[in-house]
Amino acid sequence: MTTLAITGGQVLLPDITVTRADVLIDQDDGEILEVGDDLAGDADETLDASESLVTPGFVNGHCHVAMTLLRGHADDKPLDAWLQEDIWPVEAELTADTVRAGTELGVLEMIKSGTTAFADMYFFVPTIAETVAEAGLRARLGHGVISVAKDEEAAREDAREGLAVAEEVDGMGDGRISSAFMPHSLTTVDGQYLEEFVPQARDLGVPIHYHANETADEVAPIVDEHGVRPLAYAAEKGMLEDGDFVAHGVHVDESEIGLLAEAGTSVIHCPASNMKLASGMAPVQRMLEAGVTVGIGTDGAASNNDLSMLDEARDAAMIGKLAADDASAVPAEAVVEMMTRGSAEAIGVDSGRLEAGAPADIAVLDLESPHLTPRNDLVSHLAYAAAASDVRHTICDGQVLMRDREVLALDEAAVCERATESADDLIARAEE
Amino acid sequence: MTTLAITGGQVLLPDITVTRADVLIDQDDGEILEVGDDLAGDADETLDASESLVTPGFVNGHCHVAMTLLRGHADDKPLDAWLQEDIWPVEAELTADTVRAGTELGVLEMIKSGTTAFADMYFFVPTIAETVAEAGLRARLGHGVISVAKDEEAAREDAREGLAVAEEVDGMGDGRISSAFMPHSLTTVDGQYLEEFVPQARDLGVPIHYHANETADEVAPIVDEHGVRPLAYAAEKGMLEDGDFVAHGVHVDESEIGLLAEAGTSVIHCPASNMKLASGMAPVQRMLEAGVTVGIGTDGAASNNDLSMLDEARDAAMIGKLAADDASAVPAEAVVEMMTRGSAEAIGVDSGRLEAGAPADIAVLDLESPHLTPRNDLVSHLAYAAAASDVRHTICDGQVLMRDREVLALDEAAVCERATESADDLIARAEE
Ligand SMILES: [Zn+2]
Ligand SMILES: [Zn+2]
Repeated sequence: MTTLAITGGQVLLPDITVTRADVLIDQDDGEILEVGDDLAGDADETLDASESLVTPGFVNGHCHVAMTLLRGHADDKPLDAWLQEDIWPVEAELTADTVRAGTELGVLEMIKSGTTAFADMYFFVPTIAETVAEAGLRARLGHGVISVAKDEEAAREDAREGLAVAEEVDGMGDGRISSAFMPHSLTTVDGQYLEEFVPQARDLGVPIHYHANETADEVAPIVDEHGVRPLAYAAEKGMLEDGDFVAHGVHVDESEIGLLAEAGTSVIHCPASNMKLASGMAPVQRMLEAGVTVGIGTDGAASNNDLSMLDEARDAAMIGKLAADDASAVPAEAVVEMMTRGSAEAIGVDSGRLEAGAPADIAVLDLESPHLTPRNDLVSHLAYAAAASDVRHTICDGQVLMRDREVLALDEAAVCERATESADDLIARAEE
Repeated sequence: MTTLAITGGQVLLPDITVTRADVLIDQDDGEILEVGDDLAGDADETLDASESLVTPGFVNGHCHVAMTLLRGHADDKPLDAWLQEDIWPVEAELTADTVRAGTELGVLEMIKSGTTAFADMYFFVPTIAETVAEAGLRARLGHGVISVAKDEEAAREDAREGLAVAEEVDGMGDGRISSAFMPHSLTTVDGQYLEEFVPQARDLGVPIHYHANETADEVAPIVDEHGVRPLAYAAEKGMLEDGDFVAHGVHVDESEIGLLAEAGTSVIHCPASNMKLASGMAPVQRMLEAGVTVGIGTDGAASNNDLSMLDEARDAAMIGKLAADDASAVPAEAVVEMMTRGSAEAIGVDSGRLEAGAPADIAVLDLESPHLTPRNDLVSHLAYAAAASDVRHTICDGQVLMRDREVLALDEAAVCERATESADDLIARAEE
């Protein structure tokens, strides 16, 4: 057994309190052996965490990781025009190579900002899976199935690809990669395909993930056509079960919050994307009170514009208070829980907690800087003041992916260079 | 004449476009001599800006800088309870020494995050002025005058201190320090004192700065008691003139936006504080359309919880869209303008623009990192993706305060240590 000890740090425990402790890891199994005092002596290797906060690696519950290539490509536009004029024309030009370049960039940004697991919906998923597996992260991946603007055969073909991909990538990366069936949303996939393919996804044993109740404009047509709210419609289609998770959940009413809680379907809150696209404010405090599992996601970098879960946690606390009209709503402890264990439970990966027997997915944050001084409350600092640049070590599945801010898993300069070339080429092709 | 050239960078021009240029500075006068090509040859000293963005130093339009000591001390509480239970009891124990320690910490954080000028309302202002002058920043400072819960003599004494301080600190730091008369707010200073002391501030020739229309709870009593909206009441008291500036302006109606535009009174938008205290969403897009000068401020670190103007700009864009229910509202260009020239004009300091003849207040941001890759749009990156840690050089009044992330103006470790000790001591005294 090869062991690694993270020593001298303040450790964030599963009950969201902080205590002085070391963390001992079995690197062969990728598991935490012990959280306790004086564990350095037993270890083959140590990682210094003095003047640092040791937290579970952050879990990004909803992303389109390759969209890092489109960071800043088109801002300040409403969701509909933005998708139709700026995003979809570019995405029509995607190739496996551009997706690989964008995924490498996104994964690099995640490692640097302490994210160790994520859920992702995109295209060329086997390429994404390979890239994530090589980089050493944990992920639940799926192909974004869309039927609108396609004829019946093309729509079926796309849904079949969604199933095939879910089967193909599941278990890759020594089991760090899992999958889901991912119809893009309740309005971009026609009901007949949901009826046909969702049961097949159940047969595969994978959860369902989709965008839901993101904008008010998306709710009205469903109510008009089907006579029920979107999540009741989703339930009718068999897409609201235990282990399923939806992105956004901005425009959910009390009846839908009840459905989510009862079904065990989780919500990934994407506050930055919801603000930037003026989609609205999700009732996060209400969902938490109702017992819904809520995680946090960055959504794609094109609507954020970064993949830092620390930014996202701060956004979640901030907007959660405004939405509830109550400054005590969505407190620091809640967002810290959401960005770790909440997201992990929502997307169905075992991660997000520092205790014996848990996977060794860990971020270590440097506390020695003016913006984290004085250390009045480290949970508050994590929620409100810490930044991506404070992350000094990132460990996933027991492997050190970044040590003292040097990424070991990827060649940072080469990844940035390939991403720049790919983005220039992709955007030029779309504009031809 | 001693000259400094900032070479090889991309430069943000006053029209919020970015171009390849060098910047030549006269360090004796603290002025920009030229923005143009190939200026390195003429300079006594050079500062490398290759792979970097050269922007005006950020201007924090509203702060309580010494409150960095209370960062994370009490979060997730409504404004009223937070002030009465957590903030005021601690502030009652302030001494000049604690204020110096908190100011040093805040100023250090500002320099590290590219802020070169700010407006500040607090106590022990001569101590703040000395500390800011030593650190090399530019600031407009004032004493927060409060009359509630004071007898008449104490209230008058406090207002007199507000005037005396405005006179005393004006012109310190080789003219980098200016002052204002700062009644805390329209509800915490009784009308009789405004009537008595505002004219005396006009005689001194200093502007008036105060909190206004921050929460809905603050608007109603003014309407009840005086029969007019808060800013109409402020106008009656002579506090709405050209050069005056108010903090927050969340709950302003169209009539008040009209009053601001007509008077030439500016608004400092504090989005993080407004979200964290659930105060509401300021109608920033409406104010901009009406011709109101809008700047951006962090407010105190206790309600933020950091002093990074880059976080604040992103927050302003995000919440501005939500408030307007329009994703095209408060675009990247607008927030970049607000965080530089907008704030500078609002608080009445000459800063916030890179052009010949302007003060040499400059931040240089490192662009070589995954979260700023690819460089599709540098104005977008500044608004949405850049972080405090990207700032590599900070120059104020022609002097280099930070070079390659090393702060020259202050001893970083010593400042953090003094702040930690002071905060522990202060909070312990308040809890006695
Ligand atoms: Zn999405
Ligand atoms: Zn304030």
